[in-house]
Amino acid sequence: MAKEVRYAISPTRAEDYSEWYQEVVKAADLAEHSPVRGCMVIKPWGYGIWENIQKVMNAKIKETGHQNAYFPLFIPLSFFEKEAEHVEGFAKECAVVTHARLEKNQEGKLVPSGLLEEPLVVRPTSEMIIGEMFAKWVQSWRDLPLLINQWANIVRMEMRTRLFLRTTEFLWQEGHTVHATKKEAEEETRKMLDLYAEFCRNWLAMPVIQGEKSENERFPGAVSTFAIEAMMQDRKSLQAGTSHFLGQNFAKSCNIRFTDENGNLQLGWTTSWGVTTRLIGGLVMTHSDDDGLVLPPRIAPAHIVILPIIHQEETKNALLTYCRKMQEELKKISFQGIPLEVILDESDKRGGEKKWQWVKKGVPVRLEIGMREMQSDTLSVSRRDLGRAPAQQISRRAFLEEVVKTLGEIQLSLLQKAEEFQKQHTKLICSKEELFRFFTPENKESPEIHGGFALAHFCQDPKIEEELKKELNITLRCIPFQEEEEGKCIITGQKSKKKVIFAKAY
Amino acid sequence: MAKEVRYAISPTRAEDYSEWYQEVVKAADLAEHSPVRGCMVIKPWGYGIWENIQKVMNAKIKETGHQNAYFPLFIPLSFFEKEAEHVEGFAKECAVVTHARLEKNQEGKLVPSGLLEEPLVVRPTSEMIIGEMFAKWVQSWRDLPLLINQWANIVRMEMRTRLFLRTTEFLWQEGHTVHATKKEAEEETRKMLDLYAEFCRNWLAMPVIQGEKSENERFPGAVSTFAIEAMMQDRKSLQAGTSHFLGQNFAKSCNIRFTDENGNLQLGWTTSWGVTTRLIGGLVMTHSDDDGLVLPPRIAPAHIVILPIIHQEETKNALLTYCRKMQEELKKISFQGIPLEVILDESDKRGGEKKWQWVKKGVPVRLEIGMREMQSDTLSVSRRDLGRAPAQQISRRAFLEEVVKTLGEIQLSLLQKAEEFQKQHTKLICSKEELFRFFTPENKESPEIHGGFALAHFCQDPKIEEELKKELNITLRCIPFQEEEEGKCIITGQKSKKKVIFAKAY
Repeated sequence: MAKEVRYAISPTRAEDYSEWYQEVVKAADLAEHSPVRGCMVIKPWGYGIWENIQKVMNAKIKETGHQNAYFPLFIPLSFFEKEAEHVEGFAKECAVVTHARLEKNQEGKLVPSGLLEEPLVVRPTSEMIIGEMFAKWVQSWRDLPLLINQWANIVRMEMRTRLFLRTTEFLWQEGHTVHATKKEAEEETRKMLDLYAEFCRNWLAMPVIQGEKSENERFPGAVSTFAIEAMMQDRKSLQAGTSHFLGQNFAKSCNIRFTDENGNLQLGWTTSWGVTTRLIGGLVMTHSDDDGLVLPPRIAPAHIVILPIIHQEETKNALLTYCRKMQEELKKISFQGIPLEVILDESDKRGGEKKWQWVKKGVPVRLEIGMREMQSDTLSVSRRDLGRAPAQQISRRAFLEEVVKTLGEIQLSLLQKAEEFQKQHTKLICSKEELFRFFTPENKESPEIHGGFALAHFCQDPKIEEELKKELNITLRCIPFQEEEEGKCIITGQKSKKKVIFAKAY
Repeated sequence: MAKEVRYAISPTRAEDYSEWYQEVVKAADLAEHSPVRGCMVIKPWGYGIWENIQKVMNAKIKETGHQNAYFPLFIPLSFFEKEAEHVEGFAKECAVVTHARLEKNQEGKLVPSGLLEEPLVVRPTSEMIIGEMFAKWVQSWRDLPLLINQWANIVRMEMRTRLFLRTTEFLWQEGHTVHATKKEAEEETRKMLDLYAEFCRNWLAMPVIQGEKSENERFPGAVSTFAIEAMMQDRKSLQAGTSHFLGQNFAKSCNIRFTDENGNLQLGWTTSWGVTTRLIGGLVMTHSDDDGLVLPPRIAPAHIVILPIIHQEETKNALLTYCRKMQEELKKISFQGIPLEVILDESDKRGGEKKWQWVKKGVPVRLEIGMREMQSDTLSVSRRDLGRAPAQQISRRAFLEEVVKTLGEIQLSLLQKAEEFQKQHTKLICSKEELFRFFTPENKESPEIHGGFALAHFCQDPKIEEELKKELNITLRCIPFQEEEEGKCIITGQKSKKKVIFAKAY
């Protein structure tokens, strides 16, 4: 009988995927639940990933001509009401501020006091408050396009929450733009979706499918919603970013009008688009294994960790000095424009414990340095993406020469593996029976992991979409951008020109 | 009779200082009031300053060993209550969330619904929620010091608000730390205060006085509060940052305990410290003149603006090409580690209008380039800090060689001017009469501008402090760090070892 392998994360993916996710987040010290219902605390290692996401995304948003600004956290109820579909879409999950102070009541108990004349909604998204300001800022065609972005916190009172994936409060960027023409606004919507897709692919090593959302899944008040969808290791889909073409709906509600070049008053065309801390959840579920987090080097808070293996107190100082020198040398090197972040773990944990902590945190490269390595001027190098492959003994000089190449290889190999996985579990589906078979667990030991992306011709009838959701717990993730073709809906047999993607989803 | 000079800002500082401030903010397009009571919208030019403040401050906070994290926006009322002085200090300005959704009532009106079991306070500061988490994170002396920082939005329901200086919602960073000993926590408090002072001086060119706050002005729940105070051009004081030694008060309320090296359970010692978007208000009031904003180069969103002077349509393209080349050349240069930010204003505004826009926005250097300049390979250079001094004709090559030096000179000259102003209006006060005279307007035409920093021996009796506040509208700004000396309180004649600073304040 083969020796049973014990993994650092329990349960493993196969045993209980949802629980595995929570355990990976916990073991990597990314975030934890707070005592405030549904709100998480993002811990330094998780926030470090968010800071890297922000840095790259912020630069891309600015390069495409957008400027950052900041708008109020609160939206007066009367503004929020102006767009009927919008308010209906968010009414069930709004945190509402009703009082402006606390006071002791007759029993000496502290209670809300100072009732506000008008309740304030804590922003679940900012269209209505930003639109209000845009109406003042936009007067003439010369003021357009107006291209604004905001980094902010958002509150949606979700009933069932999961760290990063769905939380009552989350962090995001939200872009809001006004254009003179429909065409320009549509182009903006697609441009930002492309930008998100490129970022996910090249930084998070997370391939995504771009497409349009069905009517059922549209942003409340939008004319059309576009999204990027990524496949997680349980083959479920994660909506990783959205870009909305709002038409003139919000311009009407907020009264965003401009005088065109001929002196005529026109309604503006608006867009909005955003990505959130949810990306971190996607990152975790795309690359991690049963030993914990695996981070792509381009987004990792640290590229390398140095682990001094201290056996004797007498040699400790010499070894630490050697390791510090190594750290300094590495910090002088840049990987794709970023100076290497190198952690030296000087803690007095035992060697094994020390090592496993950094495995679980997903640092791309670990360098173990003991007296043997120091004396022979070599390093014991482990790549996190290679799992439990044995460490390589490499001369210090060779490592310094190759480190940038190695990190590039890790980045690429993670992307290729994720692409391969997505391809493997994306299936062209030609009949209802095939669809039902695809979404029926085949493996009783890990029923959670099954299915994938079902690519099928579909008539896009919202009612049938609802039924499929009830029967199979699948949703229409998106209608990928594609050439039109002649096809038949796999459910009704009606003519269909486009294939859609069905999947179970987060 | 001399020709009357008309300024870009009306009223001028002398005419109406408060109104002048609002107008400078407006003319520079830094921020504006929103329709949400007391909340401002920070516009791109203002937010650009905040981004630069964040960038520098964030690096300094990390260099001193702190890590960023993110904690919930909401604090359950029961947590908030745990520290009696703390809750009393903030109870009157708390936004309280009481409902979790919106619903139509019988009349079809949208109203708050889904009453929460426990009200949630929108954070007016995060001691109580961060303390709650720290209590879990801190177990052993090995976990200390715990050094955490958060960038966040904060809500305090202020009655009277002014853009940047006092707003219902503002942005800040708040550091929160736990230490094993009193001494370490005290050192941390001082270290961060020093860091703030150094930042204000070297980046904002805003000299500050460091000192301890009196009992009356202490942070609710703190053992001692330290602050940096800056003198504005109306000679009032602006508290520009605070650092609190919290003793074991919050550790007790939140139960932050650790096992020391001898195995004994100990209470932690905590600190907190913060600076806010208020710094932008301070920056505006330290340097601006009657023509608008003046920005120190190290914190300006752009260092240089190029203004093409287009007289003829035929030569427009050639001129713009020349200007774009100049912009590219300048962008390759770094000023104190930062690549130059250079704006090229290609708008078709008239020359004067174009120029004055950038004067009011405070860009440190303006380059006017017309056909004459292009043909002679020269530039017409204006330094914003020199006010209306005539532009200098400088050869393009000489300018490129000297630009870094010039920006350094501007930075230094703004600091020196502000230091000189502070010095000039700081007066040693030796009697009550002198104090009253110092704070009595001498100039009837601009009664707002008078007084300054009154440096005086004072017995530190809180009641007398209150009386002086009522009589002269002055407060004890801080007890500056100083050598003790023998002195007598200027009010009571009691023995005093330290001089304090009295001033009117924002």
